[in-house]
Amino acid sequence: MKILESPDQILEMTARFQSGETKLGFVSAMGLLHEGHLALIRKAREMADSVLVMVYANPALVQDDETLLRLKEQRPADIELLASEGVDYACFPGRKELHPKDHRTHVRLDKLDQRFRGIETDQYLTGLATVYLQAMNLFRPNFVFVAQKNYLDFLILKRLIRDLDVRTEPVLSPTVRDENGLPYSSFHGLFGDAEKGVALKVCQALGAAREELMAGEKSAVRIIQRMQELMGREPLLHVRFVGILDPGNLEPLERVTRDALVYVVAHVGRFRFTDNFIFHVQQD
Amino acid sequence: MKILESPDQILEMTARFQSGETKLGFVSAMGLLHEGHLALIRKAREMADSVLVMVYANPALVQDDETLLRLKEQRPADIELLASEGVDYACFPGRKELHPKDHRTHVRLDKLDQRFRGIETDQYLTGLATVYLQAMNLFRPNFVFVAQKNYLDFLILKRLIRDLDVRTEPVLSPTVRDENGLPYSSFHGLFGDAEKGVALKVCQALGAAREELMAGEKSAVRIIQRMQELMGREPLLHVRFVGILDPGNLEPLERVTRDALVYVVAHVGRFRFTDNFIFHVQQD
Repeated sequence: MKILESPDQILEMTARFQSGETKLGFVSAMGLLHEGHLALIRKAREMADSVLVMVYANPALVQDDETLLRLKEQRPADIELLASEGVDYACFPGRKELHPKDHRTHVRLDKLDQRFRGIETDQYLTGLATVYLQAMNLFRPNFVFVAQKNYLDFLILKRLIRDLDVRTEPVLSPTVRDENGLPYSSFHGLFGDAEKGVALKVCQALGAAREELMAGEKSAVRIIQRMQELMGREPLLHVRFVGILDPGNLEPLERVTRDALVYVVAHVGRFRFTDNFIFHVQQD
Repeated sequence: MKILESPDQILEMTARFQSGETKLGFVSAMGLLHEGHLALIRKAREMADSVLVMVYANPALVQDDETLLRLKEQRPADIELLASEGVDYACFPGRKELHPKDHRTHVRLDKLDQRFRGIETDQYLTGLATVYLQAMNLFRPNFVFVAQKNYLDFLILKRLIRDLDVRTEPVLSPTVRDENGLPYSSFHGLFGDAEKGVALKVCQALGAAREELMAGEKSAVRIIQRMQELMGREPLLHVRFVGILDPGNLEPLERVTRDALVYVVAHVGRFRFTDNFIFHVQQD
């Protein structure tokens, strides 16, 4: 595995993939690598000739010093894991490289931003879109892989790729879960038993929603209400959003008569936690 | 000259330049080609191995149907001119291609936007930055050439290239003027004598400002006042902005003790008209 440290090394790497005959797959991570990342890497190895992993703690996602320190401490283990998974290139840009102090150009997804607004902050949305675009411009991958768990990220990415004529194909990959059904996230390893317990309530609420949908329930409001009851009131769990949305444009659905994204964003302790599933409706 | 009409043709073209050994130069025009464009093309031929010209009426710049019609009528003459100048590739994207109805992702230059705000509309700034980025992503040129006349465009471009990690070098090229000193613009050929007369007043005011600066005047407010007097009140001339700015960040200067961008934006009849010069101050 080659670790890309300078712009020259990046240029040299991308030159290899510019003919279009060999394909580069891209996976983004904030560090604290887990099974979910490994699944993306394996998918990337299947679809592309080489795999590049960028590990970057986007300031839109991570601000607290404690997490930044953990990310830094974990770096040697992350590198070892990437190498053992057959990753070809790894890049660990610093904040100064992608976000120097006078970095002031941002990508905004106007209408999508409005729909996300109840769900995520502007800073989150713009920060995510901007870093994705920077990475696409720097590395020029053929494919970029995102986990279903981060469906909103996927939608942001898909949209900016289309609207800004980026030459990359976004690929959605299934969520990977631990033996309890909890989706792996960068914070998974930082959760104690209490955090795992409340995070599982979110997954269980989603499971209940799926069952109701399969049993024929069509009313979004009834399903959401049931989910909220199941998640209950827990000091460690702050549910920020529960929605049943059109997976294409995130418009809220009143009745589930077509495909629906059932989506929860929460905070578990100080960590962001999100999970979702897409319910596919058979059209006659 | 090859006219690029499909995404496949664009991909095939860019593949030629991806090794980095041969360089592609990019010139953007809205049509109604003039001497200013030809100067950019000649500069591009000097610095690059091949030259691509994109002719596109950015909706942020052109809305009126009459101008759009003129642009369309002029197309065959534009093509002939480009071919005669040794342009290698020309591309005439339609609005549906770069701005389909649900195109909603935009590039914003946060702080620069604020400074521009007195000068240009948000729509202008965002529209320009977004189309530039789209063109950079589509064509992946090594160089992009902008005329000094459009210094603000150059600054927008330079900023987005740096902040979004675009791999293109922006190149500023001198303004080309007709025998009267009027800078060529896409509207130059549409000006009647009356329009030319009032546009010249803008150029003369800039000339007077240069003379005052050379004579040692340091007060921006006195120079601006003198310029406004010289431009006077003309029914055809709507001066929208007169400024003396730091050329690096567009902050207004009170005293010209370092390099200064002296800049006018006006409307001549229904056409946007801009001219400027940079005054270089010798530092001891």
